Amino acid sequence: MSADNGASQAKVLRVETMNPRIRVMEYAVRGAIPIRAEELAAELKASPGSRPFSKVTPCNIGNPQQLGQKPLTFLRQVSALMEYSDLLSPALLEQTRKLFPEDAIARAQRNLSHVNGAVGAYTQSLGIHEIREDVARFIEQRDGFPADPNSICLTNGASGAVERVLDILVSSPDVGVMIPIPQYPLYTASLAHLDAKAVPYYLQEESDWQLSVADLERALGEARAGGVDVRALVVINPGNPTGGCLEEANIEEVVRFCERERLVLLADEVYQTNIYTETNPFVSFKKVVSRLKSPVELFSFHSISKGMVGECGRRGGYYEAVNIDSQVMAQLLKLASVSLCPNVQGQMAVGVMVNPPQPGDASYEQYQRELGDIYQSMRRRAKKLALAFNSLPNMSCNDAQGAMYLFPKIELPQAFIDEAQSLGQQPDGLYCMRMLEATGISVVPGSGFGQAPGTFHFRSTFLPSEELFDEFIAGFRSFHLDFVARYAASQQ
Amino acid sequence: MSADNGASQAKVLRVETMNPRIRVMEYAVRGAIPIRAEELAAELKASPGSRPFSKVTPCNIGNPQQLGQKPLTFLRQVSALMEYSDLLSPALLEQTRKLFPEDAIARAQRNLSHVNGAVGAYTQSLGIHEIREDVARFIEQRDGFPADPNSICLTNGASGAVERVLDILVSSPDVGVMIPIPQYPLYTASLAHLDAKAVPYYLQEESDWQLSVADLERALGEARAGGVDVRALVVINPGNPTGGCLEEANIEEVVRFCERERLVLLADEVYQTNIYTETNPFVSFKKVVSRLKSPVELFSFHSISKGMVGECGRRGGYYEAVNIDSQVMAQLLKLASVSLCPNVQGQMAVGVMVNPPQPGDASYEQYQRELGDIYQSMRRRAKKLALAFNSLPNMSCNDAQGAMYLFPKIELPQAFIDEAQSLGQQPDGLYCMRMLEATGISVVPGSGFGQAPGTFHFRSTFLPSEELFDEFIAGFRSFHLDFVARYAASQQ
Repeated sequence: MSADNGASQAKVLRVETMNPRIRVMEYAVRGAIPIRAEELAAELKASPGSRPFSKVTPCNIGNPQQLGQKPLTFLRQVSALMEYSDLLSPALLEQTRKLFPEDAIARAQRNLSHVNGAVGAYTQSLGIHEIREDVARFIEQRDGFPADPNSICLTNGASGAVERVLDILVSSPDVGVMIPIPQYPLYTASLAHLDAKAVPYYLQEESDWQLSVADLERALGEARAGGVDVRALVVINPGNPTGGCLEEANIEEVVRFCERERLVLLADEVYQTNIYTETNPFVSFKKVVSRLKSPVELFSFHSISKGMVGECGRRGGYYEAVNIDSQVMAQLLKLASVSLCPNVQGQMAVGVMVNPPQPGDASYEQYQRELGDIYQSMRRRAKKLALAFNSLPNMSCNDAQGAMYLFPKIELPQAFIDEAQSLGQQPDGLYCMRMLEATGISVVPGSGFGQAPGTFHFRSTFLPSEELFDEFIAGFRSFHLDFVARYAASQQ
Repeated sequence: MSADNGASQAKVLRVETMNPRIRVMEYAVRGAIPIRAEELAAELKASPGSRPFSKVTPCNIGNPQQLGQKPLTFLRQVSALMEYSDLLSPALLEQTRKLFPEDAIARAQRNLSHVNGAVGAYTQSLGIHEIREDVARFIEQRDGFPADPNSICLTNGASGAVERVLDILVSSPDVGVMIPIPQYPLYTASLAHLDAKAVPYYLQEESDWQLSVADLERALGEARAGGVDVRALVVINPGNPTGGCLEEANIEEVVRFCERERLVLLADEVYQTNIYTETNPFVSFKKVVSRLKSPVELFSFHSISKGMVGECGRRGGYYEAVNIDSQVMAQLLKLASVSLCPNVQGQMAVGVMVNPPQPGDASYEQYQRELGDIYQSMRRRAKKLALAFNSLPNMSCNDAQGAMYLFPKIELPQAFIDEAQSLGQQPDGLYCMRMLEATGISVVPGSGFGQAPGTFHFRSTFLPSEELFDEFIAGFRSFHLDFVARYAASQQ
């Protein structure tokens, strides 16, 4: 045993003594490949030209502004005025008007009035009441059914909301929560952290990643037969990592299934405005539950990190609770209060997202143009990347109907699978690591999300900017063709 | 059983079925009294004059900007420029210079360069590296010992940091963490949430709330004899709710105790610049651990919410990990990564706090003046409130050496204690509720923090603004004198 190991053994807090539920958590979106990508980026910064690529392209995470997406001007103008509210004082207002449009000034004044001028103070634990009213109006207009501001809780991004709801649901290690496979690994990580059971059901790749109620029934039946107290079902729509959008009939089937089986429904709808299909427009679970007058207990999640807003770093989001017991609502309030409040600028940005400039407002046209440009560009890039993937041998990919990702299937040669296994690695993990080392493109292996047994995938965002998009595709294409040729040769 | 109860029984998620660890959590800082205070504030807004007071005065929480404390101008100027970075574009820079000083512009440009211009993107999970370098330099200058940016993790306020560290420490329900009594209830709430054991030790009210190693030994011995796996010790210095500042010799004793007993040390130092005593200047646990070359595993916490910065709503803070096992550090990084990153403006504000304008910078004098004005005002108000409490019958109070609170002891008449008990209430809780109903002043009962058996206290901030401070004291004084007179009369 080395001296270092000896010293390490002497620590009170060690991997062997720490919380084992954290030890078993996995989160591939920021796992081995992104960590290696950061090392490569640092290396390229220190010695340019040391690699066969000039920069690292992070396609492992839906982080649009990292790749050059411009923020929405109105949102930032409002935030800036709230930050330095002296700009709204009589002494400076004249100068300020030369730099900021009238409606941004009015919105900042309105927002400041909600917090008595103090964006630096803790707000109510659930978030600023007037912003929750704006969210409720947004939901009513979207769905055509009422929403209650007191059922809405603002959070530090949707991740914070999901973690809190799972936390209150899990009362013992016997509790199970149904999650899609493939899934966003926040769910498996949080369930591991809570020492609860993930009960996987499979999305149907051959039918554009729709949900199969038959498979829900199979998964639930197996888990219950094994003694798992299955209590809830997670649906991600539009899908992450799949990009699939559920049809309304499919959503209705899922609601009925939850009713029948007494499952709380968690609807992760953070990509609700990232829709690129005409056939499957976004329909919220809240709308279907309301239309059916279903008693299903529902939590829906939304975020400012995605959509065209893309304000990931601000950490803003919310959940809406529908049909939830009033005493449980009080417990959720208590839980929120221990963390004091979500950050105020994140709350304010939720307000702008759900209540943007209206026709006649000074910023209306610019806001709509910016939103439209980002949307059209994402849509073009989604289609272009799907086309590129589908033009390659040993690769197939559903069109992205929504979200920010494609999840292509790769046929890996047996020799490569054997090689990965001899290295103790997942074959898709090794494929992605090779891609990174050859091209600087960082994607996440399908094994980080889960996939049907014997299949291999990876998730890539389509967020590199349009100027660089052809280069990004060319880099990927060249790597994959080399890879295929090399293993084809090795099998001859 | 009513129809409503019947409906409630039918829910999947009920108080009886939810996570019992959340059900048992208590958090008095936002408990029954602040909730009633919010109702009264709403009532006064709807019908002014309906109560014997004109407004609610929230002294339950250290939230200075809620009570009119002005934010630091430089910090807000930098934030505003980062939010709307078009102001730094060549087209607008000329106009911008009329509204913002040169060093705020330079700082915003520097900060933006750390994130490639994108404050709307996720950062590294531990926080922006250059800000962590600034924190490390701040710690080095404060203590005279080295600090490593890779041992620093930026978080959503110190609360998020404390929750994360406790989370990794607790591996089973047998684990105990020593906490001071009285304590900030984040600790008992988090330990209840994690299903761990709080092991209370008592601060010594008669000696300005210093720590007694004899009592630490007693508490530890009793817990270990009862089978508790005591692993860590929490110290809050300056104290919350006590306002006490530990002497350096006392800190050294505590470090030696943790060494001897193999306890990880958690030093909550969020009030490190709120020091109003000359005799006990702030000394960090990190400094003492470094000076002693102690192997003690230490996590220290700091925040932008307190001090003179007072940016509670922004949610910024950090922890520094010292002598922590490298594999545990990797696990802490993984845990941080699931939450993606702390909000970026909170990170940037940490940067301003630890690296303020320097002599010669355009904003230096204003920054120092604002800081000094807030500090002197807090100090005056702390002394004034302690004087007021000590001038009253049946009440005594240590001077606030630090923090934002006083924690006076009240002698409650036996008739009142009996009355409270007959109502099923804590006597200090009933006293505080009566104060709220009579004066609109919202404070937190000592039972929410813990107190020596048979003693009663409450915690009040001294944050009402100086213009309103005499009125605040008069309201409180009048309530207390009436209270004392009433129960004295009832005993005759």
